Amino acid sequence: MTEATTGTVYLVGSGPGDPELLTVKARRLLEEADLVMHDRLPGKEIIELVPADSRVDVGKRAHGDRTPQAEINRRLVEQAQEGKTVVRLKGGDPTVFARGGEEMTHLADHDVPFEVVPGVTSATGGPAVAGIPLTHREFASSVTIVTGHEDPTKGESAIDWECLADTGGTIVVLMGVTRLPEYTATLVEAGMDPETPVALVERASWTDQQVATGTLETIVEACESVGIEPPAVTVIGEVAGVREDVLAWLEGYE
Amino acid sequence: MTEATTGTVYLVGSGPGDPELLTVKARRLLEEADLVMHDRLPGKEIIELVPADSRVDVGKRAHGDRTPQAEINRRLVEQAQEGKTVVRLKGGDPTVFARGGEEMTHLADHDVPFEVVPGVTSATGGPAVAGIPLTHREFASSVTIVTGHEDPTKGESAIDWECLADTGGTIVVLMGVTRLPEYTATLVEAGMDPETPVALVERASWTDQQVATGTLETIVEACESVGIEPPAVTVIGEVAGVREDVLAWLEGYE
Repeated sequence: MTEATTGTVYLVGSGPGDPELLTVKARRLLEEADLVMHDRLPGKEIIELVPADSRVDVGKRAHGDRTPQAEINRRLVEQAQEGKTVVRLKGGDPTVFARGGEEMTHLADHDVPFEVVPGVTSATGGPAVAGIPLTHREFASSVTIVTGHEDPTKGESAIDWECLADTGGTIVVLMGVTRLPEYTATLVEAGMDPETPVALVERASWTDQQVATGTLETIVEACESVGIEPPAVTVIGEVAGVREDVLAWLEGYE
Repeated sequence: MTEATTGTVYLVGSGPGDPELLTVKARRLLEEADLVMHDRLPGKEIIELVPADSRVDVGKRAHGDRTPQAEINRRLVEQAQEGKTVVRLKGGDPTVFARGGEEMTHLADHDVPFEVVPGVTSATGGPAVAGIPLTHREFASSVTIVTGHEDPTKGESAIDWECLADTGGTIVVLMGVTRLPEYTATLVEAGMDPETPVALVERASWTDQQVATGTLETIVEACESVGIEPPAVTVIGEVAGVREDVLAWLEGYE
């Protein structure tokens, strides 16, 4: 008996949702890997590109719980040590609010070779397909990406929303549907113009993409009337207004 | 004689450089388009995927000048009005410091249908392939992307570097080689810890990728000794330190 050579783990981003927005490399690895560990974020269409016998859903557990990150880490190492080529598939990009950094460190700590295969993050790709650029020479010299999972009204939030209001650049909030009322109010209190354009893009690049537009003051109501639900990406800043100017000529997912 | 139906313009991102990091859709459009207008940023390997008779280089002009944006806009409209399917190919993503917004508005103003095909921006993909996540649950809850083309020591800079120093999140500077000495000094003066890790990734995902690592205080010297040249992406923040922890097990472009 010989010991198996440790397999490589690929941390792969699946992009915002349209299977054609996978990278060529991701597409190839999904077909070639011995095992593809995924959750539901990449979407059904992409997950179904993976041969059924190599698919492992690590997103759901009994009683609606999520698989703890420590268990995913453990299983990645275990499968690689059995000599398997493993893809860890993530929605968007693996290094932007996706715990790719933690998985990288865990793999290295356990002597497992790995590679990062970047994907189109929903932070840029979501707004893009909806006709919203993140920067603009005339009115946005920076873009800041945060996660909306944190409560901006609580002191312990790691995000300094007041500082964000000061940057003058575009703000992108990933996973920012549930707390939309809180952080839009916080930004106005911090001094941002209540008329600042805001857009939410739900299921960007999916066949059922939805978009709501408004201002810091009106966006909560606009989202209710469109029926925006998670997952969605929020864009705050003058750039969100570009969509209205170009919408009549925008093709693709509209 | 009938008037030609106006063709569609695709604003396409080519990703950081590796042809396998093109999206499946970008790869298809490069082959199918009547015309691909590009500059040098996507890189030779990707440009050579385009059939020679549909390639148009809009990056260079006589005497080393760049083609003015207004001229590129004009040519996009002109070609589409002749009924051609046109790809405007950009390095990285077309909506992140790439004037995609201006082109979108110009096309819509001239009744030209268009679609945005997002790519992997070098801001996320560059650090990712070098083993650097942009966010991390333990030490980075936000990431801000800026361009290094502006001079941070001049009052008229649209980027508020002092505010950036306060966010506590990761800072990514695109095109930030030339002004590296200025903005690292500005960030330290604004109160950032001089020991903050910094990494520069040159020609990320290309076959001749180079990386320099250090701190806000040491990175200028580190770049000189590695010989970092534009184009490169700069990552400032604790996440830049992850690379050192994982480098021995990092595959791909190392």
